[in-house]
This record gives sequence, C-alpha cells and structure tokens, in this order.
Amino acid sequence: MKYSHLFAKTKKSIPSDATAVNHQLLLKAGFIDQLAAGIFTWMPLGLRVLRNVESIVREELNAIGAQEVMMPALIPKGNWEEGGRWNGIDILFKMKSQTDKEYGLGFSHEEVVTPLAKQYIHSYKDLPVSIYQIQTKFRDELRAKSGVLRGREFGMKDMYSFHVSLDDLHEYYDKVIQTYFAIFSRMGLTKVKMTEASGGSFTKKHSHEFNVLTPAGEVDLAYCDNCSFAENSELSTHIEGESCPSCKKGTLVVGKGIEVGNIFDLGTRFSDSFKVTFTDVDGTIKPVVMGCYGIGTTRIIGSVVELFHDDKGMIWPESITPFHVHLITLPGGVEKGEKIYKELQSKGIEVLWDDRNDVSAGVKFADGDLIGIPWRFVVSSKTGDQVEVKKRSVTESKVISIEDAIKLF
Amino acid sequence: MKYSHLFAKTKKSIPSDATAVNHQLLLKAGFIDQLAAGIFTWMPLGLRVLRNVESIVREELNAIGAQEVMMPALIPKGNWEEGGRWNGIDILFKMKSQTDKEYGLGFSHEEVVTPLAKQYIHSYKDLPVSIYQIQTKFRDELRAKSGVLRGREFGMKDMYSFHVSLDDLHEYYDKVIQTYFAIFSRMGLTKVKMTEASGGSFTKKHSHEFNVLTPAGEVDLAYCDNCSFAENSELSTHIEGESCPSCKKGTLVVGKGIEVGNIFDLGTRFSDSFKVTFTDVDGTIKPVVMGCYGIGTTRIIGSVVELFHDDKGMIWPESITPFHVHLITLPGGVEKGEKIYKELQSKGIEVLWDDRNDVSAGVKFADGDLIGIPWRFVVSSKTGDQVEVKKRSVTESKVISIEDAIKLF
Repeated sequence: MKYSHLFAKTKKSIPSDATAVNHQLLLKAGFIDQLAAGIFTWMPLGLRVLRNVESIVREELNAIGAQEVMMPALIPKGNWEEGGRWNGIDILFKMKSQTDKEYGLGFSHEEVVTPLAKQYIHSYKDLPVSIYQIQTKFRDELRAKSGVLRGREFGMKDMYSFHVSLDDLHEYYDKVIQTYFAIFSRMGLTKVKMTEASGGSFTKKHSHEFNVLTPAGEVDLAYCDNCSFAENSELSTHIEGESCPSCKKGTLVVGKGIEVGNIFDLGTRFSDSFKVTFTDVDGTIKPVVMGCYGIGTTRIIGSVVELFHDDKGMIWPESITPFHVHLITLPGGVEKGEKIYKELQSKGIEVLWDDRNDVSAGVKFADGDLIGIPWRFVVSSKTGDQVEVKKRSVTESKVISIEDAIKLF
Repeated sequence: MKYSHLFAKTKKSIPSDATAVNHQLLLKAGFIDQLAAGIFTWMPLGLRVLRNVESIVREELNAIGAQEVMMPALIPKGNWEEGGRWNGIDILFKMKSQTDKEYGLGFSHEEVVTPLAKQYIHSYKDLPVSIYQIQTKFRDELRAKSGVLRGREFGMKDMYSFHVSLDDLHEYYDKVIQTYFAIFSRMGLTKVKMTEASGGSFTKKHSHEFNVLTPAGEVDLAYCDNCSFAENSELSTHIEGESCPSCKKGTLVVGKGIEVGNIFDLGTRFSDSFKVTFTDVDGTIKPVVMGCYGIGTTRIIGSVVELFHDDKGMIWPESITPFHVHLITLPGGVEKGEKIYKELQSKGIEVLWDDRNDVSAGVKFADGDLIGIPWRFVVSSKTGDQVEVKKRSVTESKVISIEDAIKLF
C-alpha cells in the first residue's frame, strides 16, 4: 500500500487522557482512533495487526481440536437470569427493546454457550468438546483506562470446553496452558508469568491468569528469577528477596504485569444452572464439567506496544506487524523504488511504501520509526542499484542488492 | 474435518417460528443456532460460509481502493445527536451506563465515520477516500423474521466514500455498482436487479437497491425480461405486461426480491452535520460530498439458501461452500477413505469426512444432501481403488480414479 493513499496518517495531537504509552503511540501512528473513553475504531494499520493476532490464536486453538463459532452479543435477560448473573454484575450493559424485551450485552458467554452445547451433548461419546469465538465484547467499566488495555468495547477470544469429569477437564486445561504460552510466544511475548487467581465473578475454584511482565502493568506479581513460579501479590504470602518456594534456587522478585489471558475451571457452575447432563459409560446421568479460557486480542496489542517501543515509536514483532517492509523513496529513488515495491509484493511480501513527494526525508524517517514496521528499505540517488536496509530495532543499516534484500524474508 | 468431531450435527427439531426455507435449512443442518427471535449463533459450518462471503466482499472492495477499518458498535449519544438521529429512529437500541452515559448501538455508522474522516480531510488532495468495515450490526426490529434475512443482530459490510464534488461521487458510485454486481455474481447470485429506492432514513437523494430475484423475497419488483430495467413496485408507475420503458423490446414482469445491498448518495447530509469541509484547488472552502454503500453479509447467506436448495437440502455455490468435498465412507471403504481424506487436504482441498460408524449409509447421504457441499465422494467396498463422485446439483454419479477426482478442483 502507498502511504499517500493510506486513510489514516500519523498525527501529533492526541486526546489529553492518553497517558499510557500504548494509547499514545497507537493514536499518534494512526493505528486506532478514539471515539469515546475506552471505545476505539481500529484503523487500517491497527486492524492489520489485530487480524494477525487473531490468526495466530485461531491456528493454535484449531491445532488442539477447538472449533470456532460466533455467538451473538445481544443476550436475552432470560439467559442471564438462568445463569444467575442478570443482577449483581455491574459491568453488564443492559437495554430494553421497543417492545420491552430486555437484553444484556455479552461480556462473557457462558449463558449462551452452555444451553447451546446442551443441544449436542447427550452421551459420554459427545465429550469432550471445545468451542471458541473471537468476538467483540462489551463491559460497562466504571473507568476505562490505559488505552486498549481496559476498554468498554474490545476484542476477545473466549473458549469453553465440556468434559465427562474433572480429570478430563484438567488434562485439557493443561493442554490449553501450553497452547497459551505458544500463542503469546509467537507474538513476541516470551516473558509471561502464570499465576493462580481468585476467579473473579465466575468461580471459587481453580483458575489461572497469564501476565506479561512490564512496568506498565496493573497486576502486582511476586515471581522467581529462576523458575516459572509466580503469584499475584495480593494472594501471595511471599515477599521480595525470599528464596523461591518452588525451585529453592531462585530469588523472588516483585514486579508488574498485564493480564492477557485467563483460564477457569468452571466445574458444574453453569451446567448446573442450565441442567446440562450426559449419560456416562455405565448408564448413569452426570453433570457436564466445564472450563473457560479467555485471551484479550486487543489487549495483547496494547501489551506488545508497552513492551516493544522506544522514544521514537513502536517496534512490531514480525509475526503481527501490519506490513513486512516500510519502503521509503527519496529524490532519485522513486522509479527504482516502484520496481522494488512491485517485486516485493509479487513475492507476497507486504510493503507500506512512503511515496510522498511533499515531505522531507526526516519526516518520512520519523513516521517510519513511529509506525514501527520491522524492516525499513530506503531507495535514493545515493543507493545506486541497491537498497539501504535497516531493522527498526537496531541503528546500523547496510546497503545490499535487491535480491539479497528479498532473501531476508 | 471429521463429521464425528464436528460440534454441531444436523438435527430434526427446530423452533416452530422457523417458516422461511433459509431459516429451516440453516437450523436443521447446524449452520446456525437460534438464541432468540432474530438472534443467532453462527456454528462452525455457517461461520465458514460467512468467512467466505466476507473474503469475496473484502477482495472486491480492496480492488477499488477502499480501505478496511473496524468502528465500534457502542456509539455515544452525542454523536447520534450531532447526526440528528438520536430521536426518531425506532430501530436504534439505546442504553445507559452505570454512570448515566448514554449510547446507541450502531445500525449504520455515519455518526462515527464522518467525524473520523474529518480528522484526515483538509484539502482536495486528501480526496477521494473510501473506507469500509465488515461488522456486527444491531437493529431493534419490531418483528424479526425470515431467518437470517431480518435479524436483530446481523453481519453487514458498510462502506463510506468522501469526495470533492457530486460528479466525483457519481463516478465512484458507478464503480461501486459494477463491483456490487461482481460480488454477488461470485457468490452465485447472478439474477440481481438494481432499482432506484426512496432512500429510507438517510436521504431523499439518489439511491439504489440490489435485489436478488426469488419468490421468497419481501420486495415487490417490476422488471424487464430483456434488459436490466427494474423498479420497486411501490415506486413504479409501470405494470406487468407493459412494454419495457427502457429497451422498448422486453416485457415487464412482476416478481419478488430480497434486498442484499444498497447504495446512497448522501450528498452533504452528514458532512453538514459534522462540518466536514476541504480547501479546493482554488482556495475556497467546500463541504465534502459523501456516499454510503451497504451489503448484508449474513443476509446474503439467507438469499443463497433461498435460491439454491431442493427438497433434500441446501446446494452451496463452490465460492462460499463450507467445504469443497463431502467424503462419505461406507463399510469396506474406511481405510481407503482416510487416505483420500489426507491426500485431498494435502492439496488444499477442504474436506468434511463423514467417518461415523454408527449410522446407516442412508443417514449419511441424507445429511450430505442437507448440508449441501457441492461435491460428494463415496468410498466403499464396491468402489474398489476408485471413488464415486457426484455433484450435489445433479443426480448422476460416476466412479473415477482418485487422481481424476482431485483434478476436479
């Protein structure tokens, strides 16, 4: 795509409530636009990142046999009542139709998925089953904050699994834990700590949170500098400097994290409400055991920006970058640049070409750094038949042949 | 995918309010599930069709330079008021937050896209620009009906274009008309009639509707049996049997259609409300001229089902089918079937394999016809080293080699 044609250009003026780094950079670079507090439009560049995040989530979940569906956001009051959550959930947006039908907007979908699965679960042969959706969620947050980290409308992957027993659930639960680490890692989020959680509004049972370590986080963590041990500081009895209670080798460190995923052992909490049972091998009727698993897709983008940026702008991991190459043409390089642009595209390499002829080289470089595409190619009268190639994450560049530049991908 | 593993199987019992053919067949075949009147879950098979529809829409719109974004569904009252539509639109779902902030759920996004575009439009050099989204829409319909043809929550592609003049808008408008016909045609919808429309709540200006000809439609049309002339009967002064006022050769026929798309010349209706102006070549400040363009993505699926079905079930066009091949293995054919299953998948051919061993051949054939995948492959002890191949749309089958079967794609 040509930058001159791109709908949303970079901008300097952003709302004064944008104090978080992800909020500022995503707005400035034109990845998102703020309609109201906690409510955003995903602009062309931001939407490309979001689609990449979604694809990784989808691939990894499909690989463990989960199936994708799309449930509605508009959920009748009756479902919420049957699930026991119409009252007492302050973040539930409620509304009334012209004919006084009442609905709550989905912030989580147990009240839809449980009666849905009930239709297809009769015998132990129908289990286990795991279904998910990647969908827009709504939460009436008292205070939206931290950019795309806590919004009133946001993207989420929510998955629900159904099992014959707690043992079977726990086996799948452990598989999902591995899958979650794989998903985060593919997006460049390698410093993720899993902690046991209190369970929020869902359950008092087993549940875990996945936290990306960053000073920009909201969650206080105590974690081992040697092994995977980590606890939410609010629930932890351990303090900084203590020897690790798990590996006995490392030392506990206190730090902050952003919660990007969570998993819950729902037990029979919702299958009891919606009376979901199955006939077991021995002919007895038993309640189905459920698990649920969330990943904040838009929140992940905020986390990546908090982790990967410098004072010039964002630095996208190659797996979710909006484009592979940011091509900048300067005087004397336009014609050659166009050739490279077409050649890269013909190889399936996605290019954002800053083809503007009314701004300085300095402006182009600054916009390139702000947008944060991992590879920058510069073509000018100085580069001859070659191209100047630079990674966004380093300062050194090198001038190489176009053939060699293409081999980078 | 193995049918035994598929979450949503075919079913016999469906809600009694399902009277439309698309409603009945999509429910029976497990493509959708009904949560409440006009509110559906898209099940794995249905979601695959929806994603295919969305991909075609996306490809064709990108080809005319439109750019994809994703706007929020939660739109503050202030935006609706500025656009002049907070009051008087009965289908607008309204709600209040914990702190008494008021929102309306987007049924159309002029109130978001206009102030959004305003930020990036200053000069004639910034125009034209065209942006779209493929998004879930909400409408507080007094009466949801006809399955996925008129829902309270549904999928829609809405595009908005911005221009320096009416002339420039009309040029783009004509391009979109061609693109719309191309989109519909790629989905098998070749009998689409474009009519001039009254404009609904948006405008009293130029606007057009795209109607798929089918007796299941809600719109009464008078159209020529020879040329493209068509009028909405409510607005038409012409009657059945009359000579065509356009080509003078054909005869007018009266029939029904389903509206799958519409386009509006918004003029300066919303750019006046939101004060969107630009500086023209001669330095004068002028209001931006807007167009808007809708396609009902979920409604298209309903239309396709209304058009392409028989008394046994649905018949999907190859372009949007959930799978390319429905593979049925019968006794003596399971091992060979598995080989074919893997071979087809390795060639990128998507297969739904009915691998069940506890149902009869008759049940498998009936489910195959109901689901409507365009190619059926049967492998049994009778087919030897070959495979019995049948198109869903015809009755004859033939037994051919696996190599030849793969060449069909």
